[in-house]
Amino acid sequence: MSVSEKKAAIPAPIQMTPLADVPAVQPGDDLAALLHAAAKSAGVALSEGVLVVCQKIVSKAEGRIVALADIEPSDEAIRIAEEDEKDPRHVEIVLRESARIVRRGRGVMICETRHGMVCANAGVDLSNTPGSDVAVLLPDDSDASARRLREGLAALGHADLAVVISDTFGRPWREGLVDVAIGSSGIAPIADIRGSQDWMGRELQVTTMATVDQLAAGAGLLMIKDAGIPAVFVEGVPRRGDGGLSDLLRNPSEDLFR
Amino acid sequence: MSVSEKKAAIPAPIQMTPLADVPAVQPGDDLAALLHAAAKSAGVALSEGVLVVCQKIVSKAEGRIVALADIEPSDEAIRIAEEDEKDPRHVEIVLRESARIVRRGRGVMICETRHGMVCANAGVDLSNTPGSDVAVLLPDDSDASARRLREGLAALGHADLAVVISDTFGRPWREGLVDVAIGSSGIAPIADIRGSQDWMGRELQVTTMATVDQLAAGAGLLMIKDAGIPAVFVEGVPRRGDGGLSDLLRNPSEDLFR
Repeated sequence: MSVSEKKAAIPAPIQMTPLADVPAVQPGDDLAALLHAAAKSAGVALSEGVLVVCQKIVSKAEGRIVALADIEPSDEAIRIAEEDEKDPRHVEIVLRESARIVRRGRGVMICETRHGMVCANAGVDLSNTPGSDVAVLLPDDSDASARRLREGLAALGHADLAVVISDTFGRPWREGLVDVAIGSSGIAPIADIRGSQDWMGRELQVTTMATVDQLAAGAGLLMIKDAGIPAVFVEGVPRRGDGGLSDLLRNPSEDLFR
Repeated sequence: MSVSEKKAAIPAPIQMTPLADVPAVQPGDDLAALLHAAAKSAGVALSEGVLVVCQKIVSKAEGRIVALADIEPSDEAIRIAEEDEKDPRHVEIVLRESARIVRRGRGVMICETRHGMVCANAGVDLSNTPGSDVAVLLPDDSDASARRLREGLAALGHADLAVVISDTFGRPWREGLVDVAIGSSGIAPIADIRGSQDWMGRELQVTTMATVDQLAAGAGLLMIKDAGIPAVFVEGVPRRGDGGLSDLLRNPSEDLFR
């Protein structure tokens, strides 16, 4: 077999379409119904593709919101808040959402969440809606959130769909934030290309690609916050397999930075 | 002014088109001419967009290739190679390309390159072409490489184009590799959205997004190595401003993981 015969087919273009018409999400809202309506309004079939949804609307629909007024900060939260010039109630929520603090300095808390993700403030965002300061927490189980949303959309006629929930994370060494996946359903988070050959017929040294993180990042180009784009529909990315967040989390014992 | 009047316009969809017909690149090749031909073959205008090009073909065109047979490993390279079960000549090249080693363990060298990037093996890839084992180094100045390519393509009639050079990096805490930008021309690497408002009219806490890294990651979905896609043309991403790699590099003194 010649090298050219071994080549995989040229992939089709990828199209990423923003879903704009999603109203402000409230606890208890049916997110599948809201996204179904937004897709209809945008003229998007929402089938045979990947729907990337930002964490914030998922958390809000699931009621993962805490009013700061209801929080009694611990001594540790008060101490950290004084050192870092933060709201002690925010710090208290971050501590509750953290399995441990990976690094603290320069006013930043890098936390390992109870799910095993490492990110600033354990993913807890402050949101100052008029009249009440609230913290928005990560979903309790983002894979389950993605699965429920996928099932809800399937029930509304959206077939052959994968769902990725994305959040905006910083990272070591590089400036600027990028979007990453914090949960998914209907797609293998990691593409294992070990043993494939490149276009010179050589075995690849690169081993595994974080497909869902690349999806989150690409879709993030459209999730411009002031344009109100909380979801992006991606067509043209193969959706072999399934899996979830645990596929993306490095075993702490194998991590050089923990 | 009402909240709805403050909304930014809904962004257009993003389209990512793979450029497949790029032959195996040799030192001295005119990359602009090769990509011009590939775009023509794919029926892509290659104007008003961002061309994401993988580092490997840029490095090869620039002759950033070293034959392992020509390398005399130092004592330090021999020592590390024995500990990590690596080729001492590969380790020697990695050391030469590194300003310092950020972390070493589990057979992995995380290096700060002379450019200031932090990545495994200082970005040095081994490539075992039949008959000669070679190492492919990062471009000496990826921003200059991007600028030259952009100018070369402009001279061939491709107007209003930005160029991003991408490479595939691992990261702490998360499994799987993602594509990131190692150089660019014609686009601001970081989008500063401080002071913008979200769709509820609240000031955004999120500050800066790494646009070129999101571009590299999204395009990476198509750079499936065994399909031979070394470049992807992206339409629909705003290209305000300009800048380069230095915008993406965190000051080591402000980095919690160095």
